[in-house]
Amino acid sequence: MAATLSAMAERGIDLLLSTNPANMCYLTGYDAWSFYVHQLVVVTAEDSQALWIGRGMDANAARVTTFLPSENIHGYPDDYVQSTIKHPMDYVADLIREKGWAGRRIGVELDTFYFTAACFEALKRNLPDARFVDCTTLVNWVKIIKSPQEIAYMERAARIIEKTMAVGIEMIEPGRRQCDAAAAIAQAQISGTADFGGDYTALMTMLPSGVGTSTPHITWSDEPFVSGEATILELAGCHRRYHCPMARSVHLGRPPQKLADTAKIVVEGLNLALDAVKPGVTCEDIEAVWSRHIAKHGVIKESRIGYSTGLNYPPDWGESTLSLRPGDKTELRPDMTLHMIPGIWLDDWGVEISECFHVTETGARRFCDFPQDLVVKG
Amino acid sequence: MAATLSAMAERGIDLLLSTNPANMCYLTGYDAWSFYVHQLVVVTAEDSQALWIGRGMDANAARVTTFLPSENIHGYPDDYVQSTIKHPMDYVADLIREKGWAGRRIGVELDTFYFTAACFEALKRNLPDARFVDCTTLVNWVKIIKSPQEIAYMERAARIIEKTMAVGIEMIEPGRRQCDAAAAIAQAQISGTADFGGDYTALMTMLPSGVGTSTPHITWSDEPFVSGEATILELAGCHRRYHCPMARSVHLGRPPQKLADTAKIVVEGLNLALDAVKPGVTCEDIEAVWSRHIAKHGVIKESRIGYSTGLNYPPDWGESTLSLRPGDKTELRPDMTLHMIPGIWLDDWGVEISECFHVTETGARRFCDFPQDLVVKG
Repeated sequence: MAATLSAMAERGIDLLLSTNPANMCYLTGYDAWSFYVHQLVVVTAEDSQALWIGRGMDANAARVTTFLPSENIHGYPDDYVQSTIKHPMDYVADLIREKGWAGRRIGVELDTFYFTAACFEALKRNLPDARFVDCTTLVNWVKIIKSPQEIAYMERAARIIEKTMAVGIEMIEPGRRQCDAAAAIAQAQISGTADFGGDYTALMTMLPSGVGTSTPHITWSDEPFVSGEATILELAGCHRRYHCPMARSVHLGRPPQKLADTAKIVVEGLNLALDAVKPGVTCEDIEAVWSRHIAKHGVIKESRIGYSTGLNYPPDWGESTLSLRPGDKTELRPDMTLHMIPGIWLDDWGVEISECFHVTETGARRFCDFPQDLVVKG
Repeated sequence: MAATLSAMAERGIDLLLSTNPANMCYLTGYDAWSFYVHQLVVVTAEDSQALWIGRGMDANAARVTTFLPSENIHGYPDDYVQSTIKHPMDYVADLIREKGWAGRRIGVELDTFYFTAACFEALKRNLPDARFVDCTTLVNWVKIIKSPQEIAYMERAARIIEKTMAVGIEMIEPGRRQCDAAAAIAQAQISGTADFGGDYTALMTMLPSGVGTSTPHITWSDEPFVSGEATILELAGCHRRYHCPMARSVHLGRPPQKLADTAKIVVEGLNLALDAVKPGVTCEDIEAVWSRHIAKHGVIKESRIGYSTGLNYPPDWGESTLSLRPGDKTELRPDMTLHMIPGIWLDDWGVEISECFHVTETGARRFCDFPQDLVVKG
């Protein structure tokens, strides 16, 4: 809250309306799968705690999961839900008016999932005297620096993904259905370890197989794995909404030379880029280490090779802040946590091998200890 | 496509930009977890197939999962992703201009997840001569009537949820961690049956326990189930993105009388309301049957008791069309599919028992055959 208020003050924002579920959780502890209806938290220097505004039936979830005082929790009546005649942001605007805030400089997360165009139109219509300022990533940049407690949660997520990835790799066998592998992965992810449990992940299990490996975001089907084909596993462990992602690639049978060669180059490039990580180095400098290495071997990749990660909700475990790519001059700082995933997707095949890491004073500390090689089975 | 074009023609829309992942899948077959970046399909009478526009790395997912011709698939460069200097909708607007459509009447899904305020601002800025019309639920209302193939997928989802709910109920035992029950539920949901597999569900497993049952959208924790407490399971089976949801309630040990009584009233009211379903009856009439019954017994519920369901992606398996609530005068029609879920959430406890059904010429046909009573264990 303090860091958010200070970021707001720097930008002259009186009131911040945060609709990003991860930001809502970060600011208040709120944790429920209720983001399919409109909800937000309001942050202002005039109150030491945020206001939570959401659907009436979810107000008890705010009471159960946050430390907000009861008077800061506002549930709107159910006839605002998916109505064609009124919008939940009408209710929000009424509350802002009642509080005497209608003429303020109001920060909104314009490009955030769940802050729809209709939300913004309703706010503008109801609050003609307000000045709206885009604060899409204001809280995201605050939460990019992790506390020791947050790092501890990511460590737990790391233990879960090490276990889960081993299960996933074991389940990939010729003739076994993809859905059965995905089921075992989910079981491992959610049960966690004997000491702590797992949470649902903000991206679903990605399990492209065969020609599907030419693209990253395919989940699974009822089809069996096939000898002579590759499968990519892009998964995460999650504990209390904190993620540790990992990608690995598996080939059933002797892999084509180009796949084996490319996997080797990817692992080398990944480790060179990880070795280049330290506070003060920019995102584009890290990416340049990778691109120089793969260019030497004739491999080309046109997309970013990483992003910051941590606390999140579907549909993304990335934080929408920095990207490891040309042009991003953000300097890495201690206690940032990133997922470096230099995936290669070509016409009809691809390979992904990744590492999640913690930026420390001395460099990249990997969260996981898991072999990086292309896994060849059978 | 034909029904969508006809709904567009009725409203004088030349071009529809559909950003709802379920609508994108319905119109083209596109199926990937890529909705965390901006993407859409464009529907126009000038092309027999939709255009798919999304991130470059996902264009292969469009090639693999849709039947669109290659020239209808447009991937934008990766530096549009989460950029502070350009927006994917700039790319979309450029394409619309190139096609000569910049002055058209363009339908947009203003209040749809993933169509952010920033998307709309970028389109308006880039296409000053276009006229934008809100078409949030145009495709949703087309897809509310299910084909026999869609009903068949929901039947499969029903077999999966029957199996999954039995697993969930069995896993709720004093001392067992909530996360271990959630893990077994996920395993059952995704592995499906020997004949067909399961898919991920658009709402995560809801598993509120103890005081958490006072609110519907809490998932699970590492804590154990406790004797003397209730747990609500709100789950779905999913097959090829088609859902069949079900909610049941479990009490460990002898339930408090008010819980047992309320559960009985809920089951009676649910079945009376189901009996009232037939084509031509309005949503509010169905709800009135329920409310009259519970009012007689002194139970009050202020939120809707149901909605249409079917094909969907996170964060919601509801279709954002009709709601079973006062004021909704939508008439039920054959081959609509609904989830009737009259959940009761009070100060510190609640109960949920639901049925998913198919509106046929003769009434409500339940998808599932599963006992409705409050489950009392131990």
